[in-house]
Amino acid sequence: MVRVGIVGASGYTGGELLRLLHRHPNVEIAYLASRTHAGTALRDVSAAVPPNSDLVFKPLEVAEIVDQCDVIFTAVPHGAAMEFGPAVIEAGKRLIDVGTDFRFRDAATYEGWYGVDHTCPELTAKAAYGLPELFREHITGSHLVGNPGCYPTSVLLGLAPVLRAGLVQRDRINITAMSGGSGAGATPSAMLHLPEASENLQVYGVAGHRHTPEIEQGIALVLGEPTAGATNSAVSFTPHLVPMSRGILATMVLFPSETVDADRLQHVYESFYQDEPFVRVLPQDKLPATKPVRGSNMCHLAVRYDERSGRILVFSAIDNLGKGAAGQAVQNMNLVCGLPEDAGVDLMGMYP
Amino acid sequence: MVRVGIVGASGYTGGELLRLLHRHPNVEIAYLASRTHAGTALRDVSAAVPPNSDLVFKPLEVAEIVDQCDVIFTAVPHGAAMEFGPAVIEAGKRLIDVGTDFRFRDAATYEGWYGVDHTCPELTAKAAYGLPELFREHITGSHLVGNPGCYPTSVLLGLAPVLRAGLVQRDRINITAMSGGSGAGATPSAMLHLPEASENLQVYGVAGHRHTPEIEQGIALVLGEPTAGATNSAVSFTPHLVPMSRGILATMVLFPSETVDADRLQHVYESFYQDEPFVRVLPQDKLPATKPVRGSNMCHLAVRYDERSGRILVFSAIDNLGKGAAGQAVQNMNLVCGLPEDAGVDLMGMYP
Amino acid sequence: MVRVGIVGASGYTGGELLRLLHRHPNVEIAYLASRTHAGTALRDVSAAVPPNSDLVFKPLEVAEIVDQCDVIFTAVPHGAAMEFGPAVIEAGKRLIDVGTDFRFRDAATYEGWYGVDHTCPELTAKAAYGLPELFREHITGSHLVGNPGCYPTSVLLGLAPVLRAGLVQRDRINITAMSGGSGAGATPSAMLHLPEASENLQVYGVAGHRHTPEIEQGIALVLGEPTAGATNSAVSFTPHLVPMSRGILATMVLFPSETVDADRLQHVYESFYQDEPFVRVLPQDKLPATKPVRGSNMCHLAVRYDERSGRILVFSAIDNLGKGAAGQAVQNMNLVCGLPEDAGVDLMGMYP
Amino acid sequence: MVRVGIVGASGYTGGELLRLLHRHPNVEIAYLASRTHAGTALRDVSAAVPPNSDLVFKPLEVAEIVDQCDVIFTAVPHGAAMEFGPAVIEAGKRLIDVGTDFRFRDAATYEGWYGVDHTCPELTAKAAYGLPELFREHITGSHLVGNPGCYPTSVLLGLAPVLRAGLVQRDRINITAMSGGSGAGATPSAMLHLPEASENLQVYGVAGHRHTPEIEQGIALVLGEPTAGATNSAVSFTPHLVPMSRGILATMVLFPSETVDADRLQHVYESFYQDEPFVRVLPQDKLPATKPVRGSNMCHLAVRYDERSGRILVFSAIDNLGKGAAGQAVQNMNLVCGLPEDAGVDLMGMYP
Repeated sequence: MVRVGIVGASGYTGGELLRLLHRHPNVEIAYLASRTHAGTALRDVSAAVPPNSDLVFKPLEVAEIVDQCDVIFTAVPHGAAMEFGPAVIEAGKRLIDVGTDFRFRDAATYEGWYGVDHTCPELTAKAAYGLPELFREHITGSHLVGNPGCYPTSVLLGLAPVLRAGLVQRDRINITAMSGGSGAGATPSAMLHLPEASENLQVYGVAGHRHTPEIEQGIALVLGEPTAGATNSAVSFTPHLVPMSRGILATMVLFPSETVDADRLQHVYESFYQDEPFVRVLPQDKLPATKPVRGSNMCHLAVRYDERSGRILVFSAIDNLGKGAAGQAVQNMNLVCGLPEDAGVDLMGMYP
Repeated sequence: MVRVGIVGASGYTGGELLRLLHRHPNVEIAYLASRTHAGTALRDVSAAVPPNSDLVFKPLEVAEIVDQCDVIFTAVPHGAAMEFGPAVIEAGKRLIDVGTDFRFRDAATYEGWYGVDHTCPELTAKAAYGLPELFREHITGSHLVGNPGCYPTSVLLGLAPVLRAGLVQRDRINITAMSGGSGAGATPSAMLHLPEASENLQVYGVAGHRHTPEIEQGIALVLGEPTAGATNSAVSFTPHLVPMSRGILATMVLFPSETVDADRLQHVYESFYQDEPFVRVLPQDKLPATKPVRGSNMCHLAVRYDERSGRILVFSAIDNLGKGAAGQAVQNMNLVCGLPEDAGVDLMGMYP
Repeated sequence: MVRVGIVGASGYTGGELLRLLHRHPNVEIAYLASRTHAGTALRDVSAAVPPNSDLVFKPLEVAEIVDQCDVIFTAVPHGAAMEFGPAVIEAGKRLIDVGTDFRFRDAATYEGWYGVDHTCPELTAKAAYGLPELFREHITGSHLVGNPGCYPTSVLLGLAPVLRAGLVQRDRINITAMSGGSGAGATPSAMLHLPEASENLQVYGVAGHRHTPEIEQGIALVLGEPTAGATNSAVSFTPHLVPMSRGILATMVLFPSETVDADRLQHVYESFYQDEPFVRVLPQDKLPATKPVRGSNMCHLAVRYDERSGRILVFSAIDNLGKGAAGQAVQNMNLVCGLPEDAGVDLMGMYP
Repeated sequence: MVRVGIVGASGYTGGELLRLLHRHPNVEIAYLASRTHAGTALRDVSAAVPPNSDLVFKPLEVAEIVDQCDVIFTAVPHGAAMEFGPAVIEAGKRLIDVGTDFRFRDAATYEGWYGVDHTCPELTAKAAYGLPELFREHITGSHLVGNPGCYPTSVLLGLAPVLRAGLVQRDRINITAMSGGSGAGATPSAMLHLPEASENLQVYGVAGHRHTPEIEQGIALVLGEPTAGATNSAVSFTPHLVPMSRGILATMVLFPSETVDADRLQHVYESFYQDEPFVRVLPQDKLPATKPVRGSNMCHLAVRYDERSGRILVFSAIDNLGKGAAGQAVQNMNLVCGLPEDAGVDLMGMYP
């Protein structure tokens, strides 16, 4: 059994990690760290607890958690994981950061977009970017994984096949994405106050969302190019808030770099993901939606060629807390620990 | 491994059965029956399929399903399971009907409320009413289980402790219940058309909902009284449709039959359910909501005494497709098959 | 033209007052007071502004607003209107308090439930309780109106006919009510955080909601009984939060005090409200819902007799910001100013 | 008073027309036509009726409605208005078709996309395309107006300023739009069944939505080019269904044809719409959302320049039943009848 610890277990991503790890056949939850809930039983904090849970939150004692765990998940705001990461790595344990501190190879990019100094740039430079379908080799055996953001996961899974096939103009990538509210975390805000958010559709983060450079780095990684700067692929990325809890749908409008048609595109996508259990390429008569992937680790993709406008359209749906966060983190844990990649995450979505 | 078959697997309850059974450690899904989808792969019908599913729908061949399965779940409209049930029982297999045909001991009550003749009244008279927390002994070892309705499950779990303790006036039971739309099934209707149903709260089924006699029979069963007629406990039951997919909250306003207070009520409830993994009695400072139980087999209860009005208030929250349908059906299967009662249903709810 | 001022114009009720008064044929909006937005144009604060608006928020200068306005609406938290009310009354102007400070005849009841001293108990003792369909005579010509709470409005309109007809047992009134989130105001909270509130149904305020004594006072007023204490009619009142912005549905379960039937009840209700433009008694084959009254000043009522359980069921639907707040306030303004009662509020609801 | 008739008054657009016309100071509703509801009072069909309504549906008698009305609105499925239009025009009355039969100058385009023959191509060739902010001169004095589709309204108002200023590459226009469910009409469907649609975000109509050629024709009209074919501006248009009733947000990603910056773009938009009461260009620190325009005839626009990617982003929010249908139709009626353009539609949105 792999002994796991979770730092930040009372947030939405932490809760989803608990939901998955609680039923994982190879895992023992050894440490739940929370500053605010230290000493409290999980069942007194989280309503959706397992019926037989006797888990109790502890204060975060770095030496103790490192000692008692084989793998540590950090689901904390940016800046917190990097203070903690070196101790884990030095002890020979494994860290899967579901936050942002180890997503960027180039610490300068991180610093520019997040406005803080990176305290261990040499670690982040070596961290695996935890998108298994694209970077499995790097993740396997790694001790440090930066788990991708929810938007970048949906976007990069959608873009990778046509990028690698060289079928799209890299300087004209247009991404419009829509997300439910849980991506913003559990802290109440005016934007997510029910009377404001229900029956409302809001655009936000225009031309400045922090997932933009992560998508650009991802494109560089997919193409084996230098990640610093990643300026060859400046993308247009525009997120929207949809009145629901969970789910992301990314719609990508692309310009082909050579002649394509629907059959060829369909073939490119199906071939690319043919052995991937967590990516499903829908046939030409179906389109993705977020509900079918809710609660699962699945990504549903569709690709279309619009002959009239001459554009390639790619659609990608995930659960932002599933494949976009906790599900993918568990998938990464399986890889770094040598477990079956789908262990504990081969769940059906909850429908409806 | 228990070989199970599902008849009616493409509805909401059938889909939730699949979600649970797919991950059940002691179960092999041996037969998926569907008239409309016969010959089709599950993954081409249901979007939320397990990533590694190779299940295929078959036409319902009674002899075949009885032969190939140890337990058969029927999630079909009323009238369909009773035509099918005798063959299962005669073959020595087990039937868990998640519909309505085997919920009533007294076939005449069924016939009066559902408007069809019961073709095997002697079977329904012996069927176990599948509410394990209240009737576990009858279910264990039974070959035929009538799985309770969603509203009756929430209501009876809430009423049983004060009924058995003799603390409430039985002729003044008032139940107001609220449900998400999935309880009405997958067939589109004006009432559930998004523009009508969103941002709308609707009362329906006043003084005539078919779950009313089931609640009344349940009260008689809880008290060990004759079920035919069950006229001693005519209840007021009023359901409401809430703009969401899943979840039931039942609010019961009761008149005490003797002097009570909050401590005594709390003790009655906690004692009653102290060994039950799927019922959680919330402390006096917490109240139930549907989201914390969504996707789980849990029932959250709270009891309050309102000193000013002299009334006992009981609140009960379940997932109508979980404890109110598929979750409870799997719990019943575990009982009739001698498996651990929580096998495959000890899942955390999906939150948020 | 009646010159009106609004204190607290940036909240939800204030915004709805603006929406109505902006199109009122006999009104000129003379003063918008807001501490936080003083000096700002309305269109820079509120997104849903009239296209041709040039309204600007001012700081609240009591002497100035009293001087410049004939009628002042206060939509402010409890405690704020009573500091302001005497100046308005002394100046001979009219005050319609859409808050809670002037709803209670008996200042002691207010003080007990709201936890603050009432600074002008003699004023609140004389204030009209602004439910025109029940207390029109008192409101007409009054200078001070306490606008009823949203829940009490829906409940009292539903109860009044059977109370006055003496058809129900007064000590066994059971009220279950459900509201959208706007009733809680514009301040973000965990309970109304979209990921928590969407797809969730929550019970709250059990046995202690502040609208309970207001309902009890209302019953006493309907029956012409003393309001202090109002202990003869302790009601059970339980509110629920539904995942939507607007709308209240109150479901009342009542015990008859004499033999009744559906025809008689229907007649009692239709007679009672036959001349009321804002109350519609639905026929026996229809039931209320909140969407049809959304954005209007209407109350939809239905009454049923459940023969099996021997209970009277009454259902009442309003828009909590319409008939439950701003709409009714404008109706009250029309009465105190001698305008046609439906001026400016004879709007169709917004459907869907 | 202008006497108006509505054909198709029981649908969503018909209902919104009623809501607006009921309060219009210069209008008398003279004729409500409905096949299914003929002989029924409006208040017995539509729940959200004006409190004092005595309107009754009549069967559609063409001679009678033409005789009794000055302006006729048709809110009927495609194919129905063109059978009816010639009689109205020949009688010298005015027709505002809120459907699709008179939106296309080029009947062949209509026929190609809608799959029916156009029975009066010479009429549609002369009809005014009813987007007043762009084509006011043509509408004023016209007897026949084709009221634009909801998506085209939002998109064309957003595109027109940069198109006329020649700032964007016309062959690289990318439109992603999101709508609430009411745009699909009142007929229940699986896609809009509450359990499927709630908490779900769905893409649909990819590369084939019928509003695509209407947008392309609109671009040609804006630029004064021939409309037949309109192939110079093949756009990519992708709609999404959002879990809410009302509202459209269109997000347009455009490539500049010359050097631009934020100030210039802001100036272009503000200048373009400076005298328009129903279009509001938001400042650079605000972004549109659908709730602020719900229930109003407003369009909220924002324009941004993304320096990193070198793209122009335009956002446009309307109420699909307001500015996207009934509100605009009333605005058009005002123009063709010589009434103040904002009469009856200068309403604040309903918020929240």
